[in-house]
Amino acid sequence: VKTATRIEPLEEQVRQALKHENLENMRQTLVAEHPANVADIIDHLPEHERLAVFKVLPFDYASDVLSETGVEATREIIQQLQPVEASALLNRLSSDDLAEILGEDIPEQQQKLLAVMKPEMAERVRQMLAFPPRSAGRLMVQQFVAVRPEMRTADVLELLQTINPDIETITDLYMLDSAKRLLGVIGLRQVLQSPAERPLSEYAYMHQIAVAPETDQEDVARLVSQHDLFALPVVADDRRMLGIITVDDVIDVLVEESTEDVLRLGAVQGGATDETYFSTPIVRAVRRRVGWLLLLFVAGTITINVLSWFESILSQVVTLSFFIPLLIGTGGNTGAQTVSTMVRGIALNEVHAGDLFRVILREVGSGLLLGTVLSVFAFILALLLGNTLQLAIVVACSIIAICTWANTIGAVVPMLARRFNLDPALVSAPLISTLVDATGLAIYLSIAKVVLGL
Amino acid sequence: VKTATRIEPLEEQVRQALKHENLENMRQTLVAEHPANVADIIDHLPEHERLAVFKVLPFDYASDVLSETGVEATREIIQQLQPVEASALLNRLSSDDLAEILGEDIPEQQQKLLAVMKPEMAERVRQMLAFPPRSAGRLMVQQFVAVRPEMRTADVLELLQTINPDIETITDLYMLDSAKRLLGVIGLRQVLQSPAERPLSEYAYMHQIAVAPETDQEDVARLVSQHDLFALPVVADDRRMLGIITVDDVIDVLVEESTEDVLRLGAVQGGATDETYFSTPIVRAVRRRVGWLLLLFVAGTITINVLSWFESILSQVVTLSFFIPLLIGTGGNTGAQTVSTMVRGIALNEVHAGDLFRVILREVGSGLLLGTVLSVFAFILALLLGNTLQLAIVVACSIIAICTWANTIGAVVPMLARRFNLDPALVSAPLISTLVDATGLAIYLSIAKVVLGL
Repeated sequence: VKTATRIEPLEEQVRQALKHENLENMRQTLVAEHPANVADIIDHLPEHERLAVFKVLPFDYASDVLSETGVEATREIIQQLQPVEASALLNRLSSDDLAEILGEDIPEQQQKLLAVMKPEMAERVRQMLAFPPRSAGRLMVQQFVAVRPEMRTADVLELLQTINPDIETITDLYMLDSAKRLLGVIGLRQVLQSPAERPLSEYAYMHQIAVAPETDQEDVARLVSQHDLFALPVVADDRRMLGIITVDDVIDVLVEESTEDVLRLGAVQGGATDETYFSTPIVRAVRRRVGWLLLLFVAGTITINVLSWFESILSQVVTLSFFIPLLIGTGGNTGAQTVSTMVRGIALNEVHAGDLFRVILREVGSGLLLGTVLSVFAFILALLLGNTLQLAIVVACSIIAICTWANTIGAVVPMLARRFNLDPALVSAPLISTLVDATGLAIYLSIAKVVLGL
Repeated sequence: VKTATRIEPLEEQVRQALKHENLENMRQTLVAEHPANVADIIDHLPEHERLAVFKVLPFDYASDVLSETGVEATREIIQQLQPVEASALLNRLSSDDLAEILGEDIPEQQQKLLAVMKPEMAERVRQMLAFPPRSAGRLMVQQFVAVRPEMRTADVLELLQTINPDIETITDLYMLDSAKRLLGVIGLRQVLQSPAERPLSEYAYMHQIAVAPETDQEDVARLVSQHDLFALPVVADDRRMLGIITVDDVIDVLVEESTEDVLRLGAVQGGATDETYFSTPIVRAVRRRVGWLLLLFVAGTITINVLSWFESILSQVVTLSFFIPLLIGTGGNTGAQTVSTMVRGIALNEVHAGDLFRVILREVGSGLLLGTVLSVFAFILALLLGNTLQLAIVVACSIIAICTWANTIGAVVPMLARRFNLDPALVSAPLISTLVDATGLAIYLSIAKVVLGL
């Protein structure tokens, strides 16, 4: 029984083989592995060792590996190969992998490589690259089993005996008219279970879901996942069939999108490439983070203003300032919890734009509950630390107010971003914490002013 | 061309139909939709309206919807039905959906319902429930196409004409020996392209990946996604074939796991159920959050200690305290960025346990870079606000130190959690911010003490 391969020992073997220049041995070890694992190893190796490993691979196997490597490794390998070698490798890839490599990984070499590739392949890829990045048109493969309505079961079985080996899946057959418009879909199972003379048009399913090539890949993934599809047809406006998207590519989209969600939530930009942790140059990693950090830093300077407005209160009761980090920290934590919940609820389409009021009601409610629980602890803590009853009351009330406020902000900001179709990358836990920091301070010090009568 | 259905208008129609008791109309509208969309609507309806909608659905259709509803709706519907009705509905589900409903959604009614179900179905589900939750054994279906090595191509085609309609996929055929041990796998395409008299044993693929039933669902998803599989066989220790996991269930696992990742990162517990945002009772939503909030609150009280240690410095230079929220907020934001990056890198297996040193080096480097950029702004800001040059230097140096430190903490905590196989739910952005709050304060005030000579 084989389970998920641990690639660490394999990587160690590769490093040893490189060190001792035992290349034949390395080749044998690697080709026994799945190309996806070899791609993982190449991604994880330091830059100068990647090509050396890639070059030992047999030609056929190398192209399979290349379709799985991360953007950095792919770029390096292709740049270091002769154009002739590179185009020979690329010619062997499927058109969706090619569109990804030429469109996203190495766009600067796109034209040069298309010029030296097989003309029909180049043409196919050019058509796909005409669609926007991250759209259905970029994900599809143009090869599928096309059948005509007048065909009978026996004709289909004959056709299947000689179909193009590049066709990825034969589970669904697509019935097209003479203008290549999609008429219906037939499952292979139905074909196998139908009498030899029965015409396909009698049993094709006519309401097959199809998407336009411009459809966002996230919508494609949602559709495939909701409807448990194995392949989704892509059609032009006139229902002319352009290609199909297979479920394995949808899985890649889901992984890519959830990487992006996690990074966005942490205020890191542009996570949806297939760069890996180590393959991203450090300067690029910094560039993805510095924008948000600076913006939040500038926004955070309001806290200085808030504190200086309340300077006289703070200087009268110095212990008030001791609770500041704890209170705004708790506000930030509460807001981070809410924003995680909301971002996920919105992504899964559980929360709709029209639910704003219902969401606010719910989050104000749970904020009050959470705040009340915490306030008991805060109250006791303040007294234990030897503060006055009045100060303990200030801290306890503030924590209720801040939790409720943080919960509301953490819910409203993502909902508004969705309602006004703003870039969802706007919404992150650090953004919410920063918003809560300044307002939380104002809440705390205002309560102090009232309760302590300053 | 149909794209992802917007369910909002449909939901509005359902609400109107309920209000005007126009049930026949509602039935017709709903059955024209995909069951997954109807399940989404039911999930999104208030509790008291769910059963009313479910009850108008025709029996066959209702069971398809039930396999897609979230845990709350499923639970409510089944609890409100007569046991006889409920068991009739459940009998129609596939064994993986049933295992999920009886094992995770309504475990308290498991025995009662199993007792009234079809005996062979009940037995099948009992076998699956013997495997741990979230394992391969719970995800599999026990029906698949089994073939014998002595069969010829023509025999297989004959077999396929009459196979059990419950079998979900016929794309892969599994070659078993007389003891039902898995010998190899044959793609249906190969069968269709082979001469009628050719024995299967000649062209079966013998190195098929298979998993043990105890394998964690996350490993299953990684394997299917890396190897672009459509179905993955599950075998016992002796290679006896137990069932197959189909790619549509793997997609559900990926969505579930990424929900969990996002919620964990926001310090919300137990996200991996199929409860939706609105279907989770508010008290349960609070319970999932209050534990972490309290723990972090208690940990956060250290900030009070730190501030009181430095009380004399703070009272000598009151403006020092004005920068506290900004500095620790920036530290928290930096840490949140790092922890998002790390959590994702670890989940995607891009970062291995052995990379700790390499990761620290990288994150110290990028922390220094980020801190240096921010320190320029912080320095200018401090001077603009009319502070002394010395104070501006303190603020600038602190921000470099805090960013570097936050980056290190944000990287080391997830790496250590992984290395010591601690529950990954431990690592969240709020945890990192809370750790950075107290230590960041100590860094800032220590630098102030030295530079200002207090």
